Amino acid sequence: MQASDPLPSWRATPTKDALVSFVAAVTTAGDGFVAPIDRIAVFDNDGTLWCEKPMYVQAAFIFAKWQAMVAADPTLRETQPFKALVEGDREWLANILDHVPELVKGVSEAFGGITTDDFEAQVRHFFDTTTHPTFAVGYHQLGYAPMKELLEYLRANEFRVFICSGGGRDFVRVVSEDMYGIAREHVIGTSVPVIYQHGRLIRTAGVEQPVDDGEGKPVHIWARTGRRPLIAGGNADGDIQMLSQARFSLLVHHDDEEREFAYDTGAESALAMAQAEQWTVISMSGDWATVFS
Amino acid sequence: MQASDPLPSWRATPTKDALVSFVAAVTTAGDGFVAPIDRIAVFDNDGTLWCEKPMYVQAAFIFAKWQAMVAADPTLRETQPFKALVEGDREWLANILDHVPELVKGVSEAFGGITTDDFEAQVRHFFDTTTHPTFAVGYHQLGYAPMKELLEYLRANEFRVFICSGGGRDFVRVVSEDMYGIAREHVIGTSVPVIYQHGRLIRTAGVEQPVDDGEGKPVHIWARTGRRPLIAGGNADGDIQMLSQARFSLLVHHDDEEREFAYDTGAESALAMAQAEQWTVISMSGDWATVFS
Repeated sequence: MQASDPLPSWRATPTKDALVSFVAAVTTAGDGFVAPIDRIAVFDNDGTLWCEKPMYVQAAFIFAKWQAMVAADPTLRETQPFKALVEGDREWLANILDHVPELVKGVSEAFGGITTDDFEAQVRHFFDTTTHPTFAVGYHQLGYAPMKELLEYLRANEFRVFICSGGGRDFVRVVSEDMYGIAREHVIGTSVPVIYQHGRLIRTAGVEQPVDDGEGKPVHIWARTGRRPLIAGGNADGDIQMLSQARFSLLVHHDDEEREFAYDTGAESALAMAQAEQWTVISMSGDWATVFS
Repeated sequence: MQASDPLPSWRATPTKDALVSFVAAVTTAGDGFVAPIDRIAVFDNDGTLWCEKPMYVQAAFIFAKWQAMVAADPTLRETQPFKALVEGDREWLANILDHVPELVKGVSEAFGGITTDDFEAQVRHFFDTTTHPTFAVGYHQLGYAPMKELLEYLRANEFRVFICSGGGRDFVRVVSEDMYGIAREHVIGTSVPVIYQHGRLIRTAGVEQPVDDGEGKPVHIWARTGRRPLIAGGNADGDIQMLSQARFSLLVHHDDEEREFAYDTGAESALAMAQAEQWTVISMSGDWATVFS
């Protein structure tokens, strides 16, 4: 009797075959066998495990906070990044890489000097009260069903599964357990400096280097796991170095205008690398029977 | 029928009772129950899980490397820290806190610019070839049998068990799995900056702040686990902040001149805190039937 399919949201395509074959190879005695202790899988979060459009979920969180800050103190609207947000300056906001100092300053003003518990309460409030602009459900309901099945399938095969997000470690942790079954200690991400004061943990200004993107991803994975990943999944150019380290690399391709979004921007190099390196590309429109659960 | 004792190296004392009672309380339905996801235990390493006398194991590793460097390049003996080592300047070496810049420089010269793989090979070579000066066995054979049983007992009760060492994260990881059954991702410790270059991970100069000692321990525990520890174990003043965070705190007291070493130096404040805060003090001479396996 055939066991029930652990990946029902995946169509029977070569992508699914490649996934199942790789897992079978590393978990079956023989040449390709990998001991359980070495079975580490890492997945980017934004655009890989959950929806990242029309903007990163964490950006929506930060913008909501900045809006509230401006409402409480209207003089803030004279300075960036508050000014761009209030005036709806899409060009300023779209080119965030040109404005890193102002953005870090804005984030530090919003969340610096508060305890990690206070920050968590704010994140939780955001998820409890905010809905996605087009899907009209909470952001925590926009994890991809096929990827959640994949995480569970890997755990059932004795993998330890980590998130490796360019976004905030302490932001993602608040939802990782409920959304993905990924314990907080398995969330790798960008962080702000935390200090210990009189028994409390306080978030301070700034961002710890390297951020968990691009060349920073293998560094963070090393720091947090002490291993190279056996499987890695991503969707964007910032995932290239992480994907290059793994034995089996997955690239989510956003080609599903109907059920999610279709875009290659920010993933051009990753898509080219995938072809050159024979990474497994996941076509959302072709490989997934379901996108959201 | 009584199950076999999971802690046979512990004598039937109030210390063992306190341990078993606490674990029973948090794992049994009722007021004290703690969900498995929140069962985090953290243990200092030097002097808590393995022997730290006559010097830290990692110091022995570094000194052996410096000796080899001086042998290869005798001009090194003119500068610190090599000079103190070659001349056996115990006073200089004993007061390491007065010489942090020279020591960091010496460590950077010894291990900076090499890959994480090369560093691991050197650590492995050290453990394979070096023996403890008085016990005359490899340092990796000097883990405390009762503590190893305790780690296993906690895991059997669905705790995730972490090392939180003032020593080097990447040093301890090399032996944590074989010695303690603690996976590399569960080793928290002091680290040097690592960079990603052409697919390789390179150790660079310096030490990342904060070091994993004193106020740094709760910060590292937060960064690595996203939780406060339910159980914490330590033996020295640098463990006080970590122990203060836990619901159940254990302090190993080195009072066993016959089977190990007897010393309070560096633990005076921790011993006073233990009394004031009713932490559970482990008397090596009284509570342990066996010290080493």
